[in-house]
Amino acid sequence: MNFDERSLNDHRRSKGKLHQTASVQISNRDDLATYYSPGVAAVSRAIAAGEPLATYSRVGSTVLVVGDGSAVLGLGNVGPAAAYPVLEGKALLLQQLAGLDALPLALGTQVPAELVAAVRALAPNASAILLEDIAAPACFAIEAALQDLGIPVVHDDQHATAVVVLAGLLNALTLRGDTLSSAPILIHGAGAAGIAIARTLKAAGATQVVVLDSKGVVSTTRTDLTPEKLEVAVPTRSVEQAFLEATVLIGVSVAGAFRGRVKSGDIVFALANPEPEVHPSEASQAFLIATGRSDYPNQVNNVLAFPGVFLGLVQSGATRLTEEKKYAAARALARIEPPSVDRILPDPLDPRIVPALSAAVAVS
Amino acid sequence: MNFDERSLNDHRRSKGKLHQTASVQISNRDDLATYYSPGVAAVSRAIAAGEPLATYSRVGSTVLVVGDGSAVLGLGNVGPAAAYPVLEGKALLLQQLAGLDALPLALGTQVPAELVAAVRALAPNASAILLEDIAAPACFAIEAALQDLGIPVVHDDQHATAVVVLAGLLNALTLRGDTLSSAPILIHGAGAAGIAIARTLKAAGATQVVVLDSKGVVSTTRTDLTPEKLEVAVPTRSVEQAFLEATVLIGVSVAGAFRGRVKSGDIVFALANPEPEVHPSEASQAFLIATGRSDYPNQVNNVLAFPGVFLGLVQSGATRLTEEKKYAAARALARIEPPSVDRILPDPLDPRIVPALSAAVAVS
Repeated sequence: MNFDERSLNDHRRSKGKLHQTASVQISNRDDLATYYSPGVAAVSRAIAAGEPLATYSRVGSTVLVVGDGSAVLGLGNVGPAAAYPVLEGKALLLQQLAGLDALPLALGTQVPAELVAAVRALAPNASAILLEDIAAPACFAIEAALQDLGIPVVHDDQHATAVVVLAGLLNALTLRGDTLSSAPILIHGAGAAGIAIARTLKAAGATQVVVLDSKGVVSTTRTDLTPEKLEVAVPTRSVEQAFLEATVLIGVSVAGAFRGRVKSGDIVFALANPEPEVHPSEASQAFLIATGRSDYPNQVNNVLAFPGVFLGLVQSGATRLTEEKKYAAARALARIEPPSVDRILPDPLDPRIVPALSAAVAVS
Repeated sequence: MNFDERSLNDHRRSKGKLHQTASVQISNRDDLATYYSPGVAAVSRAIAAGEPLATYSRVGSTVLVVGDGSAVLGLGNVGPAAAYPVLEGKALLLQQLAGLDALPLALGTQVPAELVAAVRALAPNASAILLEDIAAPACFAIEAALQDLGIPVVHDDQHATAVVVLAGLLNALTLRGDTLSSAPILIHGAGAAGIAIARTLKAAGATQVVVLDSKGVVSTTRTDLTPEKLEVAVPTRSVEQAFLEATVLIGVSVAGAFRGRVKSGDIVFALANPEPEVHPSEASQAFLIATGRSDYPNQVNNVLAFPGVFLGLVQSGATRLTEEKKYAAARALARIEPPSVDRILPDPLDPRIVPALSAAVAVS
């Protein structure tokens, strides 16, 4: 049975991956008077008088995993119902790896102002909010509009992806005897992940970063750029020239985009999901190749980062995910174990990851 | 230890009453490939192609318990954080008694249009929505604006309360040798519960219903009435006259409102929470007295109705809670066991209730 068939069957059988259970039992009238009326009023009064809700509920360790289905995996805009199992998968990993109560919530609107208002209304129920699978460029404004909530609101496709790419690239460059500041880097894809990777690599010291979108090189001579693309634009050059110059190719775009483009000695991150920009078997001349998939070596997948990052945010009562925290998380991830070309980062289920990243995020 | 202390301690110790658990385990790369990437894409594709999300998730048995904290128990407008434990208590009862995954969500807005938009955005995640502790008169318009969602949206303080009052009153009147159509009924309180009870009793055949609010009798000569109050207004009379005429007193207002008002032979429902309009010890001349509390006899509390009503709605795929379904639920509840003056309705935890009500609601 392949992964697709097993996934369909298992989802059907267990009606999804997460369920709720009661931590107290109502067995008699006294229990009812305790947990319902009149006893629960004492808890409400204590909170109304200023005690934190987290003292009396799971809210102190709850993360909401929120999406609108506008940019799901490699599937595109499939809407909230089809996005739900993906949100739930993310929540399952937060639940299992970080011990957080992570609630998937697929929102039935793709109007940015409505999404912002809905997330704002949901904030009292959580200590952090993970935004997932929201299309660029709306994702940038939506996330920015939610930074005053008092709890971290993090668009995972941007930040966890950027953290893992930075961690993997630091190790890959070390293996090649190279440095982040001197390597020419091409990023194929200028959506949420591409822009975030470009920003994070530059913040970490990269000096030669060229971003490509579906219309070619994101260059300063173009007149069709969003503010985010303008921020990462470079002097004009051809797509061919950009590929020839680069010794690091990072793909967050479409299946096959790197086919025939990989040169000897290149570091290749082909992260399109579920089909990468180039399969490892098609790029044997590369120095190393990583993909976003868990069924190939070198998985560069944000599962390596988000459980530990969110646990660190929640445990430290952080109100935002800063650039410092992202860099600290990437460094911690890169240092879990000595890398090799077939294993630049540890296994996603390595139990050392979450404690290391959460500690790094909490103190940064 | 009293109920308040036990409630505070137990909420602190277990960090609330509901937690989430994983129904599948991610133990290795194959599991990760199955439940996360790339396997979960098969589930998303199946749903995008038209299969119901309920086939692959808990959504088919999920109820969202949503409130804004504007009218919590007898505490008033305490806001969303203080409301959360009450929403969670309701969810716990749905979880334990009806086997539904019931998620408490306290929303951080009390602007009706924003509440409506937030609930609308949340609809993809549930098969029914319970609105809780939302103040009148906004609650009427909010509920009305959400009747086109394709799943039932039910303001519990109105409808479950009305169902239980009707059930209890049918049995109390039978015990007194009386009928709903001939009994003069006074309802003290014209908020969400008061209006809903008046509407439901009249729909069930009551002909003499007088409603009082904080300004006196809700009468047709008043010029300050909302549309909902106008609907239940009667010819003018004094408060004293209204109490003298009535042989059924139903209180959904404030502690002590019936003190010194109860006549010999009256049926008294003193449902204010947590302190009733009159304590049973202060009204021994009554034919019978019921309260909303689980620590006195004759609990007339909506816990008797909402688990079964919601299970019936969800199991039958209903899109609304109709008057027919409410009447069927009340009749089913009244008939669970022969009543007595100290026990007009069964114990809230009687295991016969949920199956009887859910079946009645599903077929009506």
